[in-house]
Amino acid sequence: MINRLVSKIQKLNAPVVVGLDPMLGYVPEFIQKKAYAEYGETLEGAAEAIFEYNKGIIDATYDLIPAVKPQIAMYEQFGIEGLHAFKKTVDYAKSKDLVVIGDIKRGDIGSTSSAYAVGHLGGVKVGNTLCRAFDEDFVTVNPYLGSDGVNPFIDVCREEGKGIFVLVKTSNPSSGEFQDQMTGSRPLYELVGEQVAKWGETHMGDSYSYVGAVVGATYPEMGKILRKLMPKTYILVPGYGAQGGKAADLAPYFNEDGLGAIVNSSRGIIAAYKQEKYKEYGEQNYADASRAAVMDMIEDITSAVFR
Amino acid sequence: MINRLVSKIQKLNAPVVVGLDPMLGYVPEFIQKKAYAEYGETLEGAAEAIFEYNKGIIDATYDLIPAVKPQIAMYEQFGIEGLHAFKKTVDYAKSKDLVVIGDIKRGDIGSTSSAYAVGHLGGVKVGNTLCRAFDEDFVTVNPYLGSDGVNPFIDVCREEGKGIFVLVKTSNPSSGEFQDQMTGSRPLYELVGEQVAKWGETHMGDSYSYVGAVVGATYPEMGKILRKLMPKTYILVPGYGAQGGKAADLAPYFNEDGLGAIVNSSRGIIAAYKQEKYKEYGEQNYADASRAAVMDMIEDITSAVFR
Repeated sequence: MINRLVSKIQKLNAPVVVGLDPMLGYVPEFIQKKAYAEYGETLEGAAEAIFEYNKGIIDATYDLIPAVKPQIAMYEQFGIEGLHAFKKTVDYAKSKDLVVIGDIKRGDIGSTSSAYAVGHLGGVKVGNTLCRAFDEDFVTVNPYLGSDGVNPFIDVCREEGKGIFVLVKTSNPSSGEFQDQMTGSRPLYELVGEQVAKWGETHMGDSYSYVGAVVGATYPEMGKILRKLMPKTYILVPGYGAQGGKAADLAPYFNEDGLGAIVNSSRGIIAAYKQEKYKEYGEQNYADASRAAVMDMIEDITSAVFR
Repeated sequence: MINRLVSKIQKLNAPVVVGLDPMLGYVPEFIQKKAYAEYGETLEGAAEAIFEYNKGIIDATYDLIPAVKPQIAMYEQFGIEGLHAFKKTVDYAKSKDLVVIGDIKRGDIGSTSSAYAVGHLGGVKVGNTLCRAFDEDFVTVNPYLGSDGVNPFIDVCREEGKGIFVLVKTSNPSSGEFQDQMTGSRPLYELVGEQVAKWGETHMGDSYSYVGAVVGATYPEMGKILRKLMPKTYILVPGYGAQGGKAADLAPYFNEDGLGAIVNSSRGIIAAYKQEKYKEYGEQNYADASRAAVMDMIEDITSAVFR
């Protein structure tokens, strides 16, 4: 799957991923109204609204981008019904040949991480039948519990040809509170980064590992160091755009082969129609606004990074 | 809710919580067969089996224990259907007046943590209607992203009178890989523990905070230090029993008031019928075996801790 992701990035010349994080506040009113008319102002109504919204964005952008990254929390807040919309979004994106990165940030003790791994990347045995639940291509993983929380994911990835992105340095303002703590001569995120590189050696694709890392766009100096510590690690970069990360800062996240990083934008793409720049599209054409924003993002990043 | 938990613990003289982590391998064959006969060897069949299994255990133990702790991964592995069984388990336990600790170990950047918080502890606005999704009483939270990943949970807890347990030192063998790293003069878990105590000051119950901590039974020396660092923090202690934690080691997790800790056992209770000690009950009476194991656990802990 990492080979497939890399080849799609190369083919499209688009090291980007669209974050499908549908807050209800982003969903155009005409979509919400239609869903509530059919299902009421219920969790089911909300789930229907966010799926329809996602579908419009996927339809308008799938030929430009290698991957989407649905953030499961935005679905989980609507309970079972919301998670059903998550699953429908995963399946719909896959039907459009997109790579799907489930942003789930799970991580637990061994047997429990195994359950998350089979539920999201693999299959679970029911009686004599192998059943698949969410079936994303990649997921994000929280490393706080150490190797025996991460290895069960890698085991399933090896069987399934799938991958993970492990949180190393997150994009949020307080990420430094624990991640930047000096452990001996280096901060914790470097130690985690080194460990990610080690975990990655056990499951390599052609030129990059199936074990990737998450490093926020908002900390480019740290990105530069981590890039060197993890040369074979694909870096998923959140924080571009709405969170403040700039294209000019992204060059250090890439290797000299022009690969090694994939930059996420969520709000900046999916709620583009709300921005001054794209408001001419109007709410009805929110998906066209998203398409325009994707094209601008690809241009912004490739021109800044590959000058 | 922390006041309610404390008062239930006192009334029952039972500082214990039963972990409802239903691996299919624990579920007696007669329950599995019945579920598969009705729903096939499907995710739905598995979900039905684990709910029936849980229901039997809750019915047999609810009068002895203050709380249950369903581990969501064990349900999530069965997808939407499994999460439906999770929700049914939460609701059924609440109908028996049990406090429900959702072991979800979520944690993300601010707006995303907010979505998890409203989905699991609060309510989400759909149109003009407030809808509730999973609605547990407490959840566990991963602190790797720092304050802005944890505060959204505390905000919802304050509105709802609910609580969280933040991972400080987990029970698994490799938990030390990052958690034990020395940051200046003290290990990371102490720093996290201090921060948990600080977060807790902002949302206090009568004698303990609504912000608790997770500290594994398998590291009693660290438990002793953390108890002192976080005097007003309730400690959820996993790792007793099947994972190797012994009752004699648990005393340091408690305060002099005999409170301050609640000890979890999962496999040791829910799969008791598989142990030599309880095998006389037989598979059909698995729930009675669980009841006996709960009584033994309470006796084991109270006699070792409150000598």
